[in-house]
Amino acid sequence: MNYLVTGGAGFIGSHIVDYIIAHGDKVVVYDNFSTGKKSFIGQHKNNANFTLIEGDVLDTKKLAKSMKGIDFVFHMSAHADVRSGFDDHYIDHMQNLEATHSVLEAMFISGVKKIAFASTSSVYGDAEIHPTPEDSPISPTSLYGATKAACEHYIHSYAVYYDWDVYIFRFVSFIGERYTHGIIIDILKKLQNNPAALDLLSDGTPKKSSIYVGDGVDAMFTVIEKTKDKINVVNIGHDEILSVDEIVDTILEAAHSNPQKKYQGGNRGWKGDNNFVHLSNEKLKALGWKPRLSFKEGIQKTVEWILLHPVS
Amino acid sequence: MNYLVTGGAGFIGSHIVDYIIAHGDKVVVYDNFSTGKKSFIGQHKNNANFTLIEGDVLDTKKLAKSMKGIDFVFHMSAHADVRSGFDDHYIDHMQNLEATHSVLEAMFISGVKKIAFASTSSVYGDAEIHPTPEDSPISPTSLYGATKAACEHYIHSYAVYYDWDVYIFRFVSFIGERYTHGIIIDILKKLQNNPAALDLLSDGTPKKSSIYVGDGVDAMFTVIEKTKDKINVVNIGHDEILSVDEIVDTILEAAHSNPQKKYQGGNRGWKGDNNFVHLSNEKLKALGWKPRLSFKEGIQKTVEWILLHPVS
Repeated sequence: MNYLVTGGAGFIGSHIVDYIIAHGDKVVVYDNFSTGKKSFIGQHKNNANFTLIEGDVLDTKKLAKSMKGIDFVFHMSAHADVRSGFDDHYIDHMQNLEATHSVLEAMFISGVKKIAFASTSSVYGDAEIHPTPEDSPISPTSLYGATKAACEHYIHSYAVYYDWDVYIFRFVSFIGERYTHGIIIDILKKLQNNPAALDLLSDGTPKKSSIYVGDGVDAMFTVIEKTKDKINVVNIGHDEILSVDEIVDTILEAAHSNPQKKYQGGNRGWKGDNNFVHLSNEKLKALGWKPRLSFKEGIQKTVEWILLHPVS
Repeated sequence: MNYLVTGGAGFIGSHIVDYIIAHGDKVVVYDNFSTGKKSFIGQHKNNANFTLIEGDVLDTKKLAKSMKGIDFVFHMSAHADVRSGFDDHYIDHMQNLEATHSVLEAMFISGVKKIAFASTSSVYGDAEIHPTPEDSPISPTSLYGATKAACEHYIHSYAVYYDWDVYIFRFVSFIGERYTHGIIIDILKKLQNNPAALDLLSDGTPKKSSIYVGDGVDAMFTVIEKTKDKINVVNIGHDEILSVDEIVDTILEAAHSNPQKKYQGGNRGWKGDNNFVHLSNEKLKALGWKPRLSFKEGIQKTVEWILLHPVS
């Protein structure tokens, strides 16, 4: 099987590349290095099964050319900062929806008929049912969630039109080695500036879920290998949830830090934030998958990695 | 109340304009006349409450200027041909999603905080429950449906971000005076070319619903006037459904025509078509609305209007 991974030099993308190479398949990494890092894929640069193409997913022609001979596209490139859509109404639109439309068109042009897509728990917005199953209403409360939901619909339409195999994965927050943005980095950066006091966005009560990236990548390949359906929508999350306060304490303990915590917000971290994220994993469990790491172990591993790999 | 209606010279838009003028309110029609017609709004041209601005909704700056002093936007301009997305992957994207994003941005710039939006039964795709309630899964099977669903999500996000009042109306097919595209016109055109034989797309078995435009416009204003919720998603359909064969027979009877019918397709009119459209109207009924015309009466009125107003 020949794979192409958009955002293949990013956090999740590079772990997918590791998995593909480890299983003896071929992979093209397509990345513009806006947030991806050469160091995340450097370990493969002399491997004959590995090809790197530096390009933007919005360049449909170049992307279509890069898909020559490809069987399966992992579309992982994205604008992954959920918060910024409140101030910038175009960034999610361009880097999520326009980018995905370009990927679909490149696949159409080059005849690729299988795609896995990084969607998000944010498509559910403030879900009424917890853990949230995949057939819950789609009601995003941020432009990040709205554009990801829009991508899902576009992918579904191409699948119906042209008989594609599609795997839409709705991720909770991924953590682990090569983690590049989110609450863990935010807190460690704040501690670097001021080890004595820690300002926090919410009141500590929102409840969140995360998954260790190794477990998340395993989950994706489990679905791709084991399901027979052509159109698949599958949550990837963790049965465990923690309050933001518990997450913060776990980070602080792993970082051997003990600042005064100052919660400065309400029960949401920002406008459009969802204060209870807990996805049902029943579909994954029915396929025999279960996470190896607990939520807290994932946080500890992430803190350790960040402390060993300070941002240059 | 000061209204602006995008696509206000179109089929549904011009009926909304009639309603607003009849109720003594002010309205700005914003239309690029790509499919709208001056004859649909000519009756108001000397009315002091009526203003016409010729412009494209994708021109965000002009649209934002046109919204000065506006309280409420009806966003009715759209690419309304469900079929063409199979061959053209950009037309729905530009005229539905990009256009709606521009409308939202123009509202944001000019401070308008109320919007009614023309969504569609197509957002449900092949619904599993009939009649289909509003909390059913969103799973469009065409780029038309996908872009309209995407618009809903973008609108919802702006509403959450900025505390707007939004009215998302999921329409079945509208019929009645000024009807400009769809099965009734398709069939009357075919009969003009050949009164003896009528080629049809499906096998006649798909089941569809339509609503008379006067009843549909009443439904929208009923919701806007009676609900107190800030975010509203409401189906606008008819309790009656007919098979395509029954619809064709009703059209032929109203047109006093008796060709040989030749069904040439399967149980869908085209790739991505939904072969059973029947929306739940429980929300509307709870507000006291009911349609005055039956489905067949609506078809008859539409045929009569088209025959009296041949396309120039």
